[in-house]
Amino acid sequence: MDLREFREFRERMNARILEADNLEIRRFFALDGRTYEDGALDTRTKELLGLVASMVLRCDDCITYHLVRCAEEGISDEELFETFSVALVVGGSIVIPHLRRAVERLDEIRQMQAGGAG
Amino acid sequence: MDLREFREFRERMNARILEADNLEIRRFFALDGRTYEDGALDTRTKELLGLVASMVLRCDDCITYHLVRCAEEGISDEELFETFSVALVVGGSIVIPHLRRAVERLDEIRQMQAGGAG
Amino acid sequence: MDLREFREFRERMNARILEADNLEIRRFFALDGRTYEDGALDTRTKELLGLVASMVLRCDDCITYHLVRCAEEGISDEELFETFSVALVVGGSIVIPHLRRAVERLDEIRQMQAGGAG
Amino acid sequence: MDLREFREFRERMNARILEADNLEIRRFFALDGRTYEDGALDTRTKELLGLVASMVLRCDDCITYHLVRCAEEGISDEELFETFSVALVVGGSIVIPHLRRAVERLDEIRQMQAGGAG
Amino acid sequence: MDLREFREFRERMNARILEADNLEIRRFFALDGRTYEDGALDTRTKELLGLVASMVLRCDDCITYHLVRCAEEGISDEELFETFSVALVVGGSIVIPHLRRAVERLDEIRQMQAGGAG
Amino acid sequence: MDLREFREFRERMNARILEADNLEIRRFFALDGRTYEDGALDTRTKELLGLVASMVLRCDDCITYHLVRCAEEGISDEELFETFSVALVVGGSIVIPHLRRAVERLDEIRQMQAGGAG
Repeated sequence: MDLREFREFRERMNARILEADNLEIRRFFALDGRTYEDGALDTRTKELLGLVASMVLRCDDCITYHLVRCAEEGISDEELFETFSVALVVGGSIVIPHLRRAVERLDEIRQMQAGGAG
Repeated sequence: MDLREFREFRERMNARILEADNLEIRRFFALDGRTYEDGALDTRTKELLGLVASMVLRCDDCITYHLVRCAEEGISDEELFETFSVALVVGGSIVIPHLRRAVERLDEIRQMQAGGAG
Repeated sequence: MDLREFREFRERMNARILEADNLEIRRFFALDGRTYEDGALDTRTKELLGLVASMVLRCDDCITYHLVRCAEEGISDEELFETFSVALVVGGSIVIPHLRRAVERLDEIRQMQAGGAG
Repeated sequence: MDLREFREFRERMNARILEADNLEIRRFFALDGRTYEDGALDTRTKELLGLVASMVLRCDDCITYHLVRCAEEGISDEELFETFSVALVVGGSIVIPHLRRAVERLDEIRQMQAGGAG
Repeated sequence: MDLREFREFRERMNARILEADNLEIRRFFALDGRTYEDGALDTRTKELLGLVASMVLRCDDCITYHLVRCAEEGISDEELFETFSVALVVGGSIVIPHLRRAVERLDEIRQMQAGGAG
Repeated sequence: MDLREFREFRERMNARILEADNLEIRRFFALDGRTYEDGALDTRTKELLGLVASMVLRCDDCITYHLVRCAEEGISDEELFETFSVALVVGGSIVIPHLRRAVERLDEIRQMQAGGAG
């Protein structure tokens, strides 16, 4: 699934879920969004926190989502690889397959950013 | 992988595994089946327990299996979404990608049920 | 830590956390409480869902909390042991140490219930 | 909790659990015991498998149990530390606190073995 | 176990582990230390990454270690609570018992810092 | 993804990751490789340890990697199924979907070994 397909699926299913009449799920989704807003820590730092948490918990879709957000916040590859190194050391070699997919996704994001600038 | 393919793969590989001469694995599979039978708790409740456990442990195939069983037991969407809300609050946003796939699968199951009734 | 000490610590620290000026944490705590209220599924069933999720995720304090709530809801030992069996089969032998502590805690809860009736 | 207390608690609660009238839990306990018996792999190797699985899943009681069994099987400290190194690399730094407690427990086991020989 | 006891145990067992003749474990410990040094991301940010990873993986000792380091780096309570909120939303209510212990530990650290300044 | 595609992706992304200028990640990869070399335990045993750890942590790519290595070390199907049985009993039914994919992969590996011998 490429990045466009990932986004389309994510948006379509999020809409489907929020349509269902379940208040707790809706509140959770709203809370999830607010958590990464600027506060004592800026969004940039919070997105890195979300990324490292997603990596050690080994959730590819969560990693993709936070990588996109990190790229939007202007975080550099060098900063991202240092975040990857924390995830790898904390979470162990079991993180490596997710790291491979994360780096492939990051390259895809950078190509889209480069294309968008052309 | 659609539901039919999931089932075909599951049945084929379960058969392949049970053919192998390993008594512990066979006993585990037998025990797994018995665990959801009616007892002090009915199958319906036990399938909801299996579903929520599968969601917080983030196992898509286990979620699919229990969703199919829940639908067979006549559990409503509203009851399933409340089960999803418990999984989401207990397990956190890391459950969301599995929730999206679960809801897509549920819609597929409901379509098959509707088709079967036609 | 016996049940009284657990409760005292839980209440004291929850109060301490909610005093801190963090809106997301407060909202999460509120949402957590609401999730187990009667809906399409009754509180009884939802507490069993919370219990099995806590067991497969292997969180002793969460197990204690839901055991207390299950006992308050009048759930029987036989129903609790069937919930334990689902957790054990889904989560594997790694759940056993938590099961031992859960059963010890359940016996403590039943003694308090018996004492309270005296 | 020292090793004697651990064993006493483990045996007492296992007996309590098996007394309860739940067939699935009893079968699981029986299956758990059989899994480590000699087969194509010897008990020695299977206990090392049980140990490394317990370490990456970060279950102190399971680690203690398998360390005791490994010591009974005559597995050396050097072999155990290599097993620890696999757990550490696979599971990451999150395993370190469990490694510290495992090594403390191993030293306790070795002292008991030495004392028993006196 | 208070903070002094935690530190004493941690240092004693780390020394015991590094004395054992296992090169991979030693290299892992060295690598673990280097990962949090200043780079493209500063130590401050990396310690927050280590903290959030420890919380979602629910490792109390790792949380204590990173809280101490965060306090040494001058990170404020407000920043720490925002890190807690990310861990809570990503990891779910299963994180709450660790959050309670984290906040208790943080209060202990702040008292020691205040005492040291006296 | 068949085995050839898995290997091609793995090698290409590992090369991409090691090209990035991050010393900690490179050191982790080097350490990961060394951990399975002959020592007090032989490579054969260590690969079984890596396999069981990968199964209980439910990482399909890690399972594939260790299955290939186990096959190269001449480990028999009977030994592998006993390793699977330990993973299943320790990790629970949540391991079953990974077991199905592991056995399918093992059959693919055996076919390649048989073809390579023709």
